[in-house]
Amino acid sequence: MGKRESDFMQIAIDLSKKGMEEGRGGPFGAIVVKDDEIIGKGYNNVLATNDPTAHAEIMAIREACKNLNSFQLEGCEMYTSCEPCPMCLGAIYWARPDKVYYANTRKDAADAGFDDSVIYTEISLPVSKRRIPMYQLSHKEALEAFREWGKKENKINY
Amino acid sequence: MGKRESDFMQIAIDLSKKGMEEGRGGPFGAIVVKDDEIIGKGYNNVLATNDPTAHAEIMAIREACKNLNSFQLEGCEMYTSCEPCPMCLGAIYWARPDKVYYANTRKDAADAGFDDSVIYTEISLPVSKRRIPMYQLSHKEALEAFREWGKKENKINY
Repeated sequence: MGKRESDFMQIAIDLSKKGMEEGRGGPFGAIVVKDDEIIGKGYNNVLATNDPTAHAEIMAIREACKNLNSFQLEGCEMYTSCEPCPMCLGAIYWARPDKVYYANTRKDAADAGFDDSVIYTEISLPVSKRRIPMYQLSHKEALEAFREWGKKENKINY
Repeated sequence: MGKRESDFMQIAIDLSKKGMEEGRGGPFGAIVVKDDEIIGKGYNNVLATNDPTAHAEIMAIREACKNLNSFQLEGCEMYTSCEPCPMCLGAIYWARPDKVYYANTRKDAADAGFDDSVIYTEISLPVSKRRIPMYQLSHKEALEAFREWGKKENKINY
């Protein structure tokens, strides 16, 4: 990794501090870069917006997709000041950037009081063993919607 | 599970069909219920809004939190027409509802062409083994933000 990557990461780190200092949320920042241009920026906004999904990476992905007019981040890099939590990692897989650079780890996040590490553990558990109880019902009725999707013409896969 | 739960689930399933039929996204719907009242609704909006994070559960959580003026869904139940993908499951853990009811499974979603199951596998892999390459850099610089968070007074933990 060279100066180019460190410089972009520094911007993500600066955003992490800015958001925290302004009381918007925890110390997390992220940017999306395409062709050496920043097309999406985000910092944690959970506290300021009462939105538990307003993590830095989610904000940066949403802004970048809006700018590209696409739900895909092909040809893009993400720089995030901390290893993404499972929610944000999931969002990254749906958005499909080419690469992700991160600085702090999930262990650092856990040490700082954030649940990332616990959620990684929970997600790997069978549904029946998780802390938040999950129950299945109405399978037959719901499958009907998937069958309709299967038959739908001209659908866009994502 | 009784009629109460099936009735709420049917509303989530109806939303999954509505969104699909209107071309807003895949066949996924979700609601958040508190004290027998629906306080958040969502269906997949990925295609209509070019937002890869606009899954049914994320939309429902965001609406419910807005209505409660809180980033926590204590005392709430979520009904989702399909087992949540890792992004949405992560969001559920951050929002912390009491219970989750789901209908279709991640396997059904995979059979219908959605990546949920792949993403579950990827999330459990060590960072170095994932399909989307992830690299660490600037750890020292980023840790500084976490140290500042540790020293911050009157901070709200989330």
